[in-house]
Amino acid sequence: MRIAELSRRTGVPVPTIKYYRREGLLPPGELSSPNQAQYGEEHVRRIRLIRALVDVGGLPIAAVRDLLAVVDAPAVSVHDTLGAVLHRLIPARTVPEGETWAAVGKELEGLLRERGWVYEPGSTALQTATAALATMRELAGPTFAQRGLLEVYADAVERVAAAEIELAGSRASSVDSIVEGAVIGTVLGETLIGALRHVAQESASAKRFRN
Amino acid sequence: MRIAELSRRTGVPVPTIKYYRREGLLPPGELSSPNQAQYGEEHVRRIRLIRALVDVGGLPIAAVRDLLAVVDAPAVSVHDTLGAVLHRLIPARTVPEGETWAAVGKELEGLLRERGWVYEPGSTALQTATAALATMRELAGPTFAQRGLLEVYADAVERVAAAEIELAGSRASSVDSIVEGAVIGTVLGETLIGALRHVAQESASAKRFRN
Repeated sequence: MRIAELSRRTGVPVPTIKYYRREGLLPPGELSSPNQAQYGEEHVRRIRLIRALVDVGGLPIAAVRDLLAVVDAPAVSVHDTLGAVLHRLIPARTVPEGETWAAVGKELEGLLRERGWVYEPGSTALQTATAALATMRELAGPTFAQRGLLEVYADAVERVAAAEIELAGSRASSVDSIVEGAVIGTVLGETLIGALRHVAQESASAKRFRN
Repeated sequence: MRIAELSRRTGVPVPTIKYYRREGLLPPGELSSPNQAQYGEEHVRRIRLIRALVDVGGLPIAAVRDLLAVVDAPAVSVHDTLGAVLHRLIPARTVPEGETWAAVGKELEGLLRERGWVYEPGSTALQTATAALATMRELAGPTFAQRGLLEVYADAVERVAAAEIELAGSRASSVDSIVEGAVIGTVLGETLIGALRHVAQESASAKRFRN
């Protein structure tokens, strides 16, 4: 199909499609003449994935490009590819390290070690978690988000991740489909879990505070 | 203190502080002469809160402004104010409704009704959850993120929200401090939980897939 038809099928304007091409998010079409490219179903699918990551997942275009580079790279092993996906999903935060930083980092590592979690030392995700917790304590006081709440958080994501990884392993027939499923499930799953948390907070607040 | 000192104390450049003033994120200082304003500790605190929401929470400036308007408004009741905070944290997604949308909406509402959740009909958060789940199924197939996984998600956020709201009620001495704590805990808590989920996924993947 031509670019006009690709635009109609996906609901994405032609200039936006051309922008995705320039930014390397969308593979080139097949040239049927020097200035006429033909696109296929894989382009429809890719544009839908881009829109989902941006519109529903809330990712910036640069993050989408990095993620798609992993999706398109030849997969080595499931664990390494999943690791590459996860690594790209956590932007490195440029937060200056405050006073509570080192203590919070040790606290989190101790908590996860006790629970038997296996992760790379210096994990970007763990650094982001440290930044978030340290900033919470610096802003709201050192008794904010204490051990009891952290245990609830760790327990919740442990169950969530175990179910997700188990499903990824049981469902997928190839490393490629595991990786695409992981991108969709990780990014859109974060939106889903975040939104459900807000509904649950509204519900808990109604039960606790409403007269 | 003058604006130069405010900049030194917070590590935020003077032009950025002026931008926050223009955008209404920062209250005016007290004029000590026609073009000289004096700032206090409340300005230091406010700038730190803005930076945390932007740098660690990943919120756009417009969302921060909406949130701070709630923080600064006279609080009516804890439940209504928390509701206003939560409402502003979920951006309305401009996602076209696909075919699976209505079915997914009913599925989610059924799930939450069975669990006895209390929420406003037409809740923005529930719409966002519906958008995320419908998009996941449209992209990855109708068997993606089935009931079993949704139960795991609902169960996880139910425990998380119950602990958070209980802590908010027990810790806070005033509606104002509940609201500021709710903003910090909700926004930075989302970063913390998201990052911990990634560490947990890495750990579960290592246990499941690594040779």
